[in-house]
Amino acid sequence: MQMIKLYDLAGRDETVRFSPFCWRTRLALAHKGLPVETVPWRFTEKDVIAFSGQGLVPVLVDGGRVISDSWAIARYLDDTYADLPRLFANEQARALTAFVNDWTDTVLNPAVRQIILPDIVPLLHDKDRAYFIASREKRFGLKMNAYKEKRDSFLAQASTCLAPLRLVLARQAYLGGGQPSYADHVAMSAFIWSKICSPVRLWSVGDPLAIWFERMFSAHESVMRGARFQW
Amino acid sequence: MQMIKLYDLAGRDETVRFSPFCWRTRLALAHKGLPVETVPWRFTEKDVIAFSGQGLVPVLVDGGRVISDSWAIARYLDDTYADLPRLFANEQARALTAFVNDWTDTVLNPAVRQIILPDIVPLLHDKDRAYFIASREKRFGLKMNAYKEKRDSFLAQASTCLAPLRLVLARQAYLGGGQPSYADHVAMSAFIWSKICSPVRLWSVGDPLAIWFERMFSAHESVMRGARFQW
Repeated sequence: MQMIKLYDLAGRDETVRFSPFCWRTRLALAHKGLPVETVPWRFTEKDVIAFSGQGLVPVLVDGGRVISDSWAIARYLDDTYADLPRLFANEQARALTAFVNDWTDTVLNPAVRQIILPDIVPLLHDKDRAYFIASREKRFGLKMNAYKEKRDSFLAQASTCLAPLRLVLARQAYLGGGQPSYADHVAMSAFIWSKICSPVRLWSVGDPLAIWFERMFSAHESVMRGARFQW
Repeated sequence: MQMIKLYDLAGRDETVRFSPFCWRTRLALAHKGLPVETVPWRFTEKDVIAFSGQGLVPVLVDGGRVISDSWAIARYLDDTYADLPRLFANEQARALTAFVNDWTDTVLNPAVRQIILPDIVPLLHDKDRAYFIASREKRFGLKMNAYKEKRDSFLAQASTCLAPLRLVLARQAYLGGGQPSYADHVAMSAFIWSKICSPVRLWSVGDPLAIWFERMFSAHESVMRGARFQW
């Protein structure tokens, strides 16, 4: 059987893998104990993943199957490898995880992104830089050099957004309860992204988020060891 | 066996029951098919529930047991009446519901509250009004007459907060998946509160939230029929 292959966003240095969506998949694969061969991919290499019918990573290739979109990949992995440790304990847990996934996409990731966006630019491959700056300035309506001036207010906004996550993780070890679940992978991927791309710290020692992050790191040490954190 | 008793916040008109926290419990009881006798209670009747060791409703009395705090009550009901329809399908689902509960407490309820707060005042029992105004002005730092002027910006903020809920409910019938779960009760209670207290609409026809709300209403019709909605 061929090893699962994952097209994974990379920086100029191909060991810098910073996409939060790809990290969801990498954590999910580690959770299930599935080995994976990652293929470094850059934003402008749309032709390389054209076989997937769209232009974004993660793209997972498993034998003859091609799956894109991190949520579709998580469902595919849990359905296909049902005997390996589950990402979703049952249907209700999967439905509730969909809320965590949508909250991360619409609240947590945007809050983190506005803090770290300018710090991503120097990490990019030369051929990606102009594309990245132009597409992000257009999408988010803010010039790349305006982000750092607003960082204090962005940090305050992030702190407000993080309130429900902090509260729940002060009372339980993981979003999934006593064990990590895909909801934890999704939320953690935002912080991995942040720690790889930017030196700006999002928590202090003793923060429930810091303690949870350390637990998650230990529980996924094989894959986490390769992360290139700045803090 | 004695019927379960619930101390439930009431307005001047004792049929107006508007506490979002009490509604979580009422929906949970309806979900489990447990009959309940509600006792109308006003904010200033702290002495009436002093036996619970604290001063907030819901307070549930089940035989010799007294439980306060809506989350503790939900856990108690699901553990004690484990053979009746479950609020939490398993431990992971309960842990993920805790996130929905904390998100509702820290994001959804505050977003709704700043829209509806001044409309609550005329519904209150005379003896509660001065207490309510003084305690809320102190807690939230805004004079009661300043809320309506800011309503447009509060509505815009609420729309942003509701984004993840809208997204997920556009794809699945309930937060819990194919069937309502306690996560649905928690989120719905914020909107019941809004619809009872204020004429300000939070959605238009065809909104995924509107469709989900109607589904939830039908699924809990016995208890919902008594709600006194303004829209």
